[in-house]
Amino acid sequence: MTDTPKIVRPRRELVAAIRAIGAATASATLTHLGIRCAAMAGPVAWTRGSVVAGPALTLQFMPKREDLYGDGEYRDVEKQLHRHVLYHVEPGDMVVVDARGDMRSGVFGEMMMTYFKGRSGAGMVIDGCLRDWPNIAKLGVPLWIRGVTPNFHTQTDLMPFAVNGPIACGGVTVIPGDIVVADDDGAVVVPAGLAEACIAKAQKDHEWEDFSREMLAGGGDLRRYYPLSDAARPEYEAWKAKRAGRNPAR
Amino acid sequence: MTDTPKIVRPRRELVAAIRAIGAATASATLTHLGIRCAAMAGPVAWTRGSVVAGPALTLQFMPKREDLYGDGEYRDVEKQLHRHVLYHVEPGDMVVVDARGDMRSGVFGEMMMTYFKGRSGAGMVIDGCLRDWPNIAKLGVPLWIRGVTPNFHTQTDLMPFAVNGPIACGGVTVIPGDIVVADDDGAVVVPAGLAEACIAKAQKDHEWEDFSREMLAGGGDLRRYYPLSDAARPEYEAWKAKRAGRNPAR
Amino acid sequence: MTDTPKIVRPRRELVAAIRAIGAATASATLTHLGIRCAAMAGPVAWTRGSVVAGPALTLQFMPKREDLYGDGEYRDVEKQLHRHVLYHVEPGDMVVVDARGDMRSGVFGEMMMTYFKGRSGAGMVIDGCLRDWPNIAKLGVPLWIRGVTPNFHTQTDLMPFAVNGPIACGGVTVIPGDIVVADDDGAVVVPAGLAEACIAKAQKDHEWEDFSREMLAGGGDLRRYYPLSDAARPEYEAWKAKRAGRNPAR
Amino acid sequence: MTDTPKIVRPRRELVAAIRAIGAATASATLTHLGIRCAAMAGPVAWTRGSVVAGPALTLQFMPKREDLYGDGEYRDVEKQLHRHVLYHVEPGDMVVVDARGDMRSGVFGEMMMTYFKGRSGAGMVIDGCLRDWPNIAKLGVPLWIRGVTPNFHTQTDLMPFAVNGPIACGGVTVIPGDIVVADDDGAVVVPAGLAEACIAKAQKDHEWEDFSREMLAGGGDLRRYYPLSDAARPEYEAWKAKRAGRNPAR
Amino acid sequence: MTDTPKIVRPRRELVAAIRAIGAATASATLTHLGIRCAAMAGPVAWTRGSVVAGPALTLQFMPKREDLYGDGEYRDVEKQLHRHVLYHVEPGDMVVVDARGDMRSGVFGEMMMTYFKGRSGAGMVIDGCLRDWPNIAKLGVPLWIRGVTPNFHTQTDLMPFAVNGPIACGGVTVIPGDIVVADDDGAVVVPAGLAEACIAKAQKDHEWEDFSREMLAGGGDLRRYYPLSDAARPEYEAWKAKRAGRNPAR
Amino acid sequence: MTDTPKIVRPRRELVAAIRAIGAATASATLTHLGIRCAAMAGPVAWTRGSVVAGPALTLQFMPKREDLYGDGEYRDVEKQLHRHVLYHVEPGDMVVVDARGDMRSGVFGEMMMTYFKGRSGAGMVIDGCLRDWPNIAKLGVPLWIRGVTPNFHTQTDLMPFAVNGPIACGGVTVIPGDIVVADDDGAVVVPAGLAEACIAKAQKDHEWEDFSREMLAGGGDLRRYYPLSDAARPEYEAWKAKRAGRNPAR
Repeated sequence: MTDTPKIVRPRRELVAAIRAIGAATASATLTHLGIRCAAMAGPVAWTRGSVVAGPALTLQFMPKREDLYGDGEYRDVEKQLHRHVLYHVEPGDMVVVDARGDMRSGVFGEMMMTYFKGRSGAGMVIDGCLRDWPNIAKLGVPLWIRGVTPNFHTQTDLMPFAVNGPIACGGVTVIPGDIVVADDDGAVVVPAGLAEACIAKAQKDHEWEDFSREMLAGGGDLRRYYPLSDAARPEYEAWKAKRAGRNPAR
Repeated sequence: MTDTPKIVRPRRELVAAIRAIGAATASATLTHLGIRCAAMAGPVAWTRGSVVAGPALTLQFMPKREDLYGDGEYRDVEKQLHRHVLYHVEPGDMVVVDARGDMRSGVFGEMMMTYFKGRSGAGMVIDGCLRDWPNIAKLGVPLWIRGVTPNFHTQTDLMPFAVNGPIACGGVTVIPGDIVVADDDGAVVVPAGLAEACIAKAQKDHEWEDFSREMLAGGGDLRRYYPLSDAARPEYEAWKAKRAGRNPAR
Repeated sequence: MTDTPKIVRPRRELVAAIRAIGAATASATLTHLGIRCAAMAGPVAWTRGSVVAGPALTLQFMPKREDLYGDGEYRDVEKQLHRHVLYHVEPGDMVVVDARGDMRSGVFGEMMMTYFKGRSGAGMVIDGCLRDWPNIAKLGVPLWIRGVTPNFHTQTDLMPFAVNGPIACGGVTVIPGDIVVADDDGAVVVPAGLAEACIAKAQKDHEWEDFSREMLAGGGDLRRYYPLSDAARPEYEAWKAKRAGRNPAR
Repeated sequence: MTDTPKIVRPRRELVAAIRAIGAATASATLTHLGIRCAAMAGPVAWTRGSVVAGPALTLQFMPKREDLYGDGEYRDVEKQLHRHVLYHVEPGDMVVVDARGDMRSGVFGEMMMTYFKGRSGAGMVIDGCLRDWPNIAKLGVPLWIRGVTPNFHTQTDLMPFAVNGPIACGGVTVIPGDIVVADDDGAVVVPAGLAEACIAKAQKDHEWEDFSREMLAGGGDLRRYYPLSDAARPEYEAWKAKRAGRNPAR
Repeated sequence: MTDTPKIVRPRRELVAAIRAIGAATASATLTHLGIRCAAMAGPVAWTRGSVVAGPALTLQFMPKREDLYGDGEYRDVEKQLHRHVLYHVEPGDMVVVDARGDMRSGVFGEMMMTYFKGRSGAGMVIDGCLRDWPNIAKLGVPLWIRGVTPNFHTQTDLMPFAVNGPIACGGVTVIPGDIVVADDDGAVVVPAGLAEACIAKAQKDHEWEDFSREMLAGGGDLRRYYPLSDAARPEYEAWKAKRAGRNPAR
Repeated sequence: MTDTPKIVRPRRELVAAIRAIGAATASATLTHLGIRCAAMAGPVAWTRGSVVAGPALTLQFMPKREDLYGDGEYRDVEKQLHRHVLYHVEPGDMVVVDARGDMRSGVFGEMMMTYFKGRSGAGMVIDGCLRDWPNIAKLGVPLWIRGVTPNFHTQTDLMPFAVNGPIACGGVTVIPGDIVVADDDGAVVVPAGLAEACIAKAQKDHEWEDFSREMLAGGGDLRRYYPLSDAARPEYEAWKAKRAGRNPAR
């Protein structure tokens, strides 16, 4: 029987806090913590408007070698490793796949994706493609992928090789259990050990940003309002006071 | 006068059956018939939600050589070969173009595409670009292309070179008269001589798939429901009986 | 203090006339004036359905060299050159950025884009990416870009280097003050000195095109209707007369 | 039996004259005759120091489709099309191959190349690879290729498809019978119909070039000696007179 | 302490027999055993004229993540994983490195390579670069690499990540202990379990090949001599008899 | 008249010291000074075995725009900007060219290179190609380029645009007057302002390296000899003493 390792999941409130930060702030904040680039390049938001975060389950593909990936996979479907990463899915999990950027391999099809949704997975990031898009589209699962293809996963050059090991996805190393946060800007890996520091650093409140945005939208001077200059601070205080008056309950 | 060869079209019911199968099943089934990769990589579904199939008329571009493509083409428009592939269009035909993946050549513009639609062409697959997208978009012709450009077809590096000869499109060899099926997964070439075998092999009914999909969507176990295990078969039979009761007329 | 050069703007009516022509006609017409390829390849219409034209303000990125782009940029935000191109924006201007095709650098984020909109900029063309797309999307600024990323502009390999100098964007040289016209086909550079000639040449009226389009859409023969043949001219005259009767006020 | 078309060879003295011109002058001269780029990009001089020219025999590869390239090729070697282009070789011929830039297909191996040499072929240009390089190297056949590989020609993605038809090689269209000239700068296609004009235009003697080269090598001023300025002409005449005295027999 | 797994080496005579076969024959023979492509694409023969074979020790690089590859590596050099693969080297071993095709990371420098040579390693295959080439060149170690760079291994984007695990190198999966054979055609992976079958299949003697080569070199007909036709067999027998007379001791 | 700016050259002894360090040490040392990557990727050592360093004169190419690069360049050769960078050459200077990685533009030909040699230029780094290689090869000028082509500099897509301005070459920003050092590992930019610090940091003598190299070459343990361990230090001292005895004059 195929046995694949479990992952250690970060605390739920960490995941929720990372999701609240979003991909852009997570990436910028990690840079200030010493991680030069935590954003994956390649997989793009395929289902616009989603924001998800979750611990990473990982699946690694390798170049197909026929002596290592043989007929057995079709006689005994349990030998198909790409199924196994799905067996681990718990509600809120992200599946992250290194499919080597291949545009002719569809990692999962409709039935697999239906199962993933049935298990309440949060979303998927694939450095490669899916298959059966006409049907998968209807499921509404948040996806960051390179594209779609009619081909199945082992039809041309790849074979699934490992579950829940370290992988490279979109040029970033992902360790199982890291928190992946993804929105329309793309997907970012927050190393599990840096999640708390990232959250703490990102939450320094720029409470004047709403004010500045309003001023800039009205044609205000960038030099005056972003970042907020000392000269504009009284104006901001007045704006804040006025708004507080308007929304006393806030 | 420019004379270009006609194609032999497959029987209509074959085309209809291939369309019913769709790109993903066609590609997978052809693999089992010995065709490793019949799916074109490069052209992508530009008009989402279409499913079309039809016999392939082909147009081949080559690198422009000014001694072979001269001023005559503008003095006598009938010398422009890309017009000629359109003269062959009958209702339901697909036009497949090898534009060498070029991103700076717009193979057809609005007027040509209007003519194509007027002739009831089924759709186009272009390993390259179209031009006049703001107007072509309104026509609603199903398209699988790499992109769009403001440039016309011979503005930079290419010239049309042959009509209804064999071409390579998206890494797949296309013989005129082959059946091309395309949907949101992409475009697949079904060799005319394999169409019947492909249909026969693909139609082996997985009648339990609707049941399994429902179970998986509800959180059911992949090992139990996909493929359908012997253990789950009684459950499936009960589901089928119940459904039959609900939809007696079906 | 950082000082960057101003641009010389073409007359407003030239810009309006170029906008009326659109990207495809501008590109084709410039070819006939001797400019082989004025269409940028790389940046694509990210906000579908826009048509804009305006004089080009330019921003150039270069490979980051830490001795040239240091900590000062964060202590004194006025040293950040990408801000300066925005200081020049007047209503109707286009900002054109050579970001070297980089997919891991987000040239501007939400606040900068809000300022750009507040200044009534016409649109942006970036050979690279933006950041903060979930928020920028709401602004409705017309954009031609390669993609989006969670990374900020100097996070990985680039630094802003010059404002309102000549740049290469999408394989085309852009001189500040050139007119950039962009629609769903892409973005085209109209050299300021060729704008009048381009307009004059493009406006030769093909008054029969509406007629031909209608005929082609109804299945008419391309040889007869496009370009309009002598044989079809009486038919066209009749159509025109009939239409004039229907729309006397026109 | 497989039958492939013969080519029409240009007159021998044209070929000899083109060879004397060399690749760089041929390419530049063709530009002045209206051929923008006759130089192939991709195949590079693999055997340094050769200068060859000859009429082009052509071989075209296409993406392998297993229904078109089957077991028959191994049961009946005469079905292997890449053999057939070699059957046409006459002394001084060039074989030009469109192998689609593929780095995993070795178009010919040692035995084929030995036969080519035995037939006194002039050289080969391949937009792709050879196989058996350890042995082919010993033959001393002039070669312009992308590289070498251990794989044979149909091992992975390609199949030979046509002999002595038009092909694209290195981004240039080649018509069988065109003159290909190649040296360490690369390979250039001289269209058969332009060979005479090319020769005539290239032979305008820059008799002062030897003088200028000598002056420049000694630190002379580029402005004075290249191209030869009027100011330097007396100096040149003196040099010529002196040299004539030194080499009366020349 | 860092501990990395040992490999199981194939029997020496298998390695010697694979070396005798060479890369081209190994690749072709493996295809006939079901391995579509065992030849690595990317690393090329950097030291011409070598033929080596040996069991694969493997080193895997991954995208650098600063939280995983920190300062410790410089305080404690034993943490540098790329050293560890060298500790395993026994005479005749091949080191195979997945450096992700990176052109800005020099996997090993002069001192490491000197150690490798001192340990009598057979050669290296690197999907990436070396550093210190002016000095490494003098060592004469057989190398298949993509190029050279002045940068050290972790200077830009990579970090060594694992020793003697499965890797992908040049698009081929390599399992530690597989036999890698490399010559001027490139490097080929012979799976340990297929080595005997590969040798057996490859050694079917084409004893007539020397005869055919001689005939082809002299202008003989490919159809007659390659493969040897029945018609030419008597000629071959005569040649063999004559040669035997000339070299009685052979 | 065309006027192009002069450069400020660093002191000769700085250049000599950087040359003595070599490309690999310069690149590594600059990293420790905060410059992540000073090594150019793309241009490679075309003339093996050279080591040169010199101040950078720069030449920038841009995408050709026919309205900016017209016939005048051929009527008045002094308008050809690529000539002008050569007018600045003083003995020991390096010419560095951003030719945008183009493989179809030969930046300089034989006569220009002869002039460069006559002026005692140290070498050239071109992110692009040269032309006339059969003749340039004889000059023996040290070169780091991407390749060669038969095409001249403005034949296809480029035009020379600026002399002695900042450029990007091989992914690195070069400021005129920076010191470029190049050898078989490639070319490295040493910012003029960091040259002294780089030299100081690089010259920390690893006097034990010769000893360690000898030990490693003889099969010594990497852990013991590189870097030199405390355990091996007495052995090293003995070796040094013995060598001193053998070479008293050294």
